[in-house]
Amino acid sequence: MSVRLIESTPSAYGYPLLIKNLLKTPRVYSPDREIIFQDKSRYDYRTLYRRICRLAHVLDRAGVKQGETVAVMEYDSHRYLESFFAIPMMGSVIHTVNIRRSPESLVYTLNHAESAVIIANIEFLALLESIQDRLTHLKKIILIDGEAETATTSLEVVGTYEDLLADSPADFRFEDFSEDAVAATFYAVGSGRAPKGVCFSHRQLVMHTYSILACLCAYRFQPMADSGDVYMPLTPMFHVNAWGLVHLFTHLGAKQVYPGRSDPETILDLVQAEGVTFSHCDPSLIHTLINCPRIKEVDLSGWKVIVGGAPLSPDLCRSALELGINICSVYGMAETGPMLTAAALKPHMADWSLARQADVRTRTGLPAPLVHLEVVDVLGDPLPHDGKSIGEVVVRAPWLTRGYTGNPEESEKLWRGGWLHTGDIGYIDEEEYLHLTDRTEDAIKTGGEWIPSMELEDIICEHEAVGEAAVTRVPDEKYGEKPLALVVLKPGFEGKVDEETIRRFCKEYVRKGVLPKHGVPERIAIVDAIPRTSVGKISRRQLRQQNKPFDLNREPGSSD
Amino acid sequence: MSVRLIESTPSAYGYPLLIKNLLKTPRVYSPDREIIFQDKSRYDYRTLYRRICRLAHVLDRAGVKQGETVAVMEYDSHRYLESFFAIPMMGSVIHTVNIRRSPESLVYTLNHAESAVIIANIEFLALLESIQDRLTHLKKIILIDGEAETATTSLEVVGTYEDLLADSPADFRFEDFSEDAVAATFYAVGSGRAPKGVCFSHRQLVMHTYSILACLCAYRFQPMADSGDVYMPLTPMFHVNAWGLVHLFTHLGAKQVYPGRSDPETILDLVQAEGVTFSHCDPSLIHTLINCPRIKEVDLSGWKVIVGGAPLSPDLCRSALELGINICSVYGMAETGPMLTAAALKPHMADWSLARQADVRTRTGLPAPLVHLEVVDVLGDPLPHDGKSIGEVVVRAPWLTRGYTGNPEESEKLWRGGWLHTGDIGYIDEEEYLHLTDRTEDAIKTGGEWIPSMELEDIICEHEAVGEAAVTRVPDEKYGEKPLALVVLKPGFEGKVDEETIRRFCKEYVRKGVLPKHGVPERIAIVDAIPRTSVGKISRRQLRQQNKPFDLNREPGSSD
Repeated sequence: MSVRLIESTPSAYGYPLLIKNLLKTPRVYSPDREIIFQDKSRYDYRTLYRRICRLAHVLDRAGVKQGETVAVMEYDSHRYLESFFAIPMMGSVIHTVNIRRSPESLVYTLNHAESAVIIANIEFLALLESIQDRLTHLKKIILIDGEAETATTSLEVVGTYEDLLADSPADFRFEDFSEDAVAATFYAVGSGRAPKGVCFSHRQLVMHTYSILACLCAYRFQPMADSGDVYMPLTPMFHVNAWGLVHLFTHLGAKQVYPGRSDPETILDLVQAEGVTFSHCDPSLIHTLINCPRIKEVDLSGWKVIVGGAPLSPDLCRSALELGINICSVYGMAETGPMLTAAALKPHMADWSLARQADVRTRTGLPAPLVHLEVVDVLGDPLPHDGKSIGEVVVRAPWLTRGYTGNPEESEKLWRGGWLHTGDIGYIDEEEYLHLTDRTEDAIKTGGEWIPSMELEDIICEHEAVGEAAVTRVPDEKYGEKPLALVVLKPGFEGKVDEETIRRFCKEYVRKGVLPKHGVPERIAIVDAIPRTSVGKISRRQLRQQNKPFDLNREPGSSD
Repeated sequence: MSVRLIESTPSAYGYPLLIKNLLKTPRVYSPDREIIFQDKSRYDYRTLYRRICRLAHVLDRAGVKQGETVAVMEYDSHRYLESFFAIPMMGSVIHTVNIRRSPESLVYTLNHAESAVIIANIEFLALLESIQDRLTHLKKIILIDGEAETATTSLEVVGTYEDLLADSPADFRFEDFSEDAVAATFYAVGSGRAPKGVCFSHRQLVMHTYSILACLCAYRFQPMADSGDVYMPLTPMFHVNAWGLVHLFTHLGAKQVYPGRSDPETILDLVQAEGVTFSHCDPSLIHTLINCPRIKEVDLSGWKVIVGGAPLSPDLCRSALELGINICSVYGMAETGPMLTAAALKPHMADWSLARQADVRTRTGLPAPLVHLEVVDVLGDPLPHDGKSIGEVVVRAPWLTRGYTGNPEESEKLWRGGWLHTGDIGYIDEEEYLHLTDRTEDAIKTGGEWIPSMELEDIICEHEAVGEAAVTRVPDEKYGEKPLALVVLKPGFEGKVDEETIRRFCKEYVRKGVLPKHGVPERIAIVDAIPRTSVGKISRRQLRQQNKPFDLNREPGSSD
């Protein structure tokens, strides 16, 4: 037998999960709350809805059809917010363009996404003019600001955003369609390879909204959010659906503040003037703000900030906590829409010292509701949540990209075995927090186990003679891969310490149970210097490329 | 053109919205929280999951297949909670049996639902024995308690619940299947007609859970809920999926307290002993508790109670508020799974006087997130939210029943025009709160407008000569229906006031704009008494039946 499917009478309404349904509740609950753009614009949720309707009319008149792509090149603004809703609500696809990438990348992604219309801030006009001959699908431009330029540009400009809206009716009939319709697309930036397109459907955006709503509003974790918050994004909105927080805070009917292109002082001014209580940004912005002299004059004790995009260091976290900022790190990626985990503080940790809190708040985090997250061994089997078993992080959730646009091979690789492979290496502790230790591309998969290269480097550096160490991998017939260590000795130790000493030293850690048996490097090369990137990090790519011809059957030292 | 559907690489995991996914988060966030049954049992969420697995094994061994129905006849208990999850998680359907109905109703619903196995409290054994010959699909019984009786009953008893669980493995592989699989079924009781079966799919239960999560946790309304609450149901769990609150509080990983079959004193003891903070019940239970002497000894100031099933009177609401109970009414019905609205207090009302709060908290309420609720005229067009335009309440939401099982005619009637017709009459005020005034079957549809009979009765009773009034409807060729009023005069007015006086009095209200023109009764009959039900309410059914032969072409007074 099999399950009994629900029967539907012909007239029953199926209620597809479309993002237009997120707009109903704020207009009922808090129609008067404001949406603010810098010191330039301020309106309520009733007006937001009318402006979304007007924008849909503008796009409709510009010839945008269902299934077509409309790109947006803009700073964080109320117009971006309106585009987040109007474009998908009419059945079209919003392409949130990374405006910080090279013209090459811009040409590639606009063409690959088949973007037919671009809503572009006037500041990108010259750039667009310079690449227009290479844009294969572009038909029309809607300019944000720049009334004067519409007449003179060689691009086909429909008009300026505000003029066009003013000319359009304030009501639009948003039809129903499949909840599996693509709502949004953008590009994940790979290391040197072509950007990879990801897509998210209406259903996925709605489910993502509801999961982060639960995560932030229902579990008494810190930081928390609710409809009384004042939201201001501090990551570019093109960055992974604005982390889903624009959908969330709009559904909550919260007051929203859009900073546009701002410097740290303006950001702090807006936080103070509008009473901002919830933001998201990367660690470098927190660093910049903390080092901004103005910060002394602003009371930040009501400000909740979630930080992602790069690891948040305990030091930086503690500095923010000392300023009263309720901060924690979150984890996700382009492919995951993005939210997977939040390093939220559990209720019983609320009275811990700031240092101890910083240790929790900088972890990778607890999985959001409905996220099924595991750390798996090389066979794909889940590892225990014991704070030490290291494996690849794999996930399932209702909103993960179903593949890369037009790239079946990479799509299948991403989803091998029915789990999305994050490419991150880490472990889950006994309190269920995920800790990342490495990227899979930097870890060594040997004898069925993952050896994080950074962990092995730390061990080797414990030896009194070692100044620096870098670990990479080499192929191994029996074990798949084996670690290779490059070691720079401290001054005075040259010639006194050999490869075998270091290897014996590593074996001590195997005995202590810290390092798996296969983690002892088969080959250790004493070298003069380790390749580093421009910002001083070990260049793992260069290491791997350099060591490709390294052959374990050759004698040590003959590799380069 | 049409929308672009999301493409899925073959290995991508689709993540059906199955209720098993609600169980993941509590085990990660709060595995140690407790689930308590009276003073008899107490275990944590880890154990809950293991017991759900064990129950699935028990049912599997009893031959329950996917798509088959398992009925539950039980008081509110941890076993009912376990059944809420285990039965649908294995792909079967839980039939939550109304244990308060007649044996006839029991036979009808068990057969109609094709219930193959019943999990029954020992207290229902004799009843089941008495009807077993008429149960067409029943194969086996699992008894809750009653070890001694398993040997002597004529029913085929597999064993007792706890013995069977103890004998079963603590791990079960819950397979994926369609989110549109039926998870739960039960019967809506109509007035005198056969009960009508409604069904809810996994997807519907998950979406209902998420909407009430948002409604109760995210909008700063009063009362609010979160994972720190201690939940205790005070309605029977067979009552419309336990209002979805069992799913919600389980997903939140909240502490849960199940009272079993309890008297008011035991309920108050449990509230105090376990620190219960969130319950739901009907108004009569609140009335009973408030009048229980023990209530003076219990601090109820942390207790949030949502009340439904019947209107909550402002007096009762105020009494509860004075005891510190954070109370509000909610609205829904069997067909709506059930939650549609909550008469939650908006943040700006928090410091209002209790009397003024009671006025808000006893309204029908604000629509929950994702609920699209309108009041429509007889043509189905939405009426303005102006606090006076009265029409039928129609709704759309992602979790409404798609029809009545095996009853295509009633199903289409329920869903005519693509909206679920609640059969309730009311209006929406300018703050978006719904107010119910009547049932459609009691209102008069005349000249394209709804006239609530209760409202017209109130107007007639304003006349100094009128002791009582009852309004019903009679067919009218031109206007569809017309109101008919029965009037009992006050002592001393007999013979002094005639039909025309009352009619003139009503016309005054038309002039004032309170009553629509067609609301003036065509016929008013002065009578000696008005038919009432056993509890003193006007018997509208009897009124309609009595007045069927009432013919407008006959002279007044000749009708009976």
